[in-house]
Amino acid sequence: MIVLGIDPGTANTGYGVVAQRRGRVVALDGGVIETPAGQALERRLATIHRRLCELIAEHRPVAVAVEDLYFGANARSAFAVGQARGVVLLAAGQHDLACSSYTPQQIKSAVCGSGRAEKLQVQQMVQRLLSLTELPRPDHAADALAVAICHTNRAPLAAAMVSA
Amino acid sequence: MIVLGIDPGTANTGYGVVAQRRGRVVALDGGVIETPAGQALERRLATIHRRLCELIAEHRPVAVAVEDLYFGANARSAFAVGQARGVVLLAAGQHDLACSSYTPQQIKSAVCGSGRAEKLQVQQMVQRLLSLTELPRPDHAADALAVAICHTNRAPLAAAMVSA
Repeated sequence: MIVLGIDPGTANTGYGVVAQRRGRVVALDGGVIETPAGQALERRLATIHRRLCELIAEHRPVAVAVEDLYFGANARSAFAVGQARGVVLLAAGQHDLACSSYTPQQIKSAVCGSGRAEKLQVQQMVQRLLSLTELPRPDHAADALAVAICHTNRAPLAAAMVSA
Repeated sequence: MIVLGIDPGTANTGYGVVAQRRGRVVALDGGVIETPAGQALERRLATIHRRLCELIAEHRPVAVAVEDLYFGANARSAFAVGQARGVVLLAAGQHDLACSSYTPQQIKSAVCGSGRAEKLQVQQMVQRLLSLTELPRPDHAADALAVAICHTNRAPLAAAMVSA
């Protein structure tokens, strides 16, 4: 099962692609889609959408996992993140991929065992769980890998609950 | 100059197409893209995007005008509207159309002469300005026509300010 994890943002959209191989989760790809601050928003969103479609074509994930709104966000930043997130969900919908949303607390719990883990802890646990030789950087790529891991580890449980 | 005005929302995205003909603003099209509440968000956004692309292909606007975040929105609703708005901006960016954002206050001022006008006043002024035989309905279509009128009336001024 290949999962594409996304941490959406207009300036930096983190992505991480993970797969389950013999009971372990491995990283296939990870990075950040950056868009220039001086560019019109509609062009930046078009760049994010095009790169996401390329990633989906390259890795053929079965699911997309996306960070949900973080608690305490103000309306203006929620609006900005929402715009980038809409483009992520659209790319998934256009490829018939189911989307799952996880709050930052759920992701931290799934990866670190605590919903209050710090950024560095998340990076360290992502490194350990995926047996990476280095700390995953930047933050947005690490967060995207974390949401992909979160979905991979939770999905069998969710499927069991649906079929029970 | 044909302008596509949009009032974005997941359940109802209002659209309005207006053109300038001999110094007057006329309506070419208007309505609402509705998506079913029970459907997955990624599918609903894909429907909105597809319909917007059809409207752009049909009417070939030179610009897209979109409502900005309204003052007083909470983070959760700003996030939801942001997602639909991201898809609108994306459709514009993919067609090389410039986007302009206007706050509800700016739109009401442009159409009614007061940023504090009520919904019914906006509908009545849109009807009068476009010489429609009926009140434009529903609200979302009227709001989309209003933002398109707002852009049409302000754009020459903005162009004059840039070139001055």
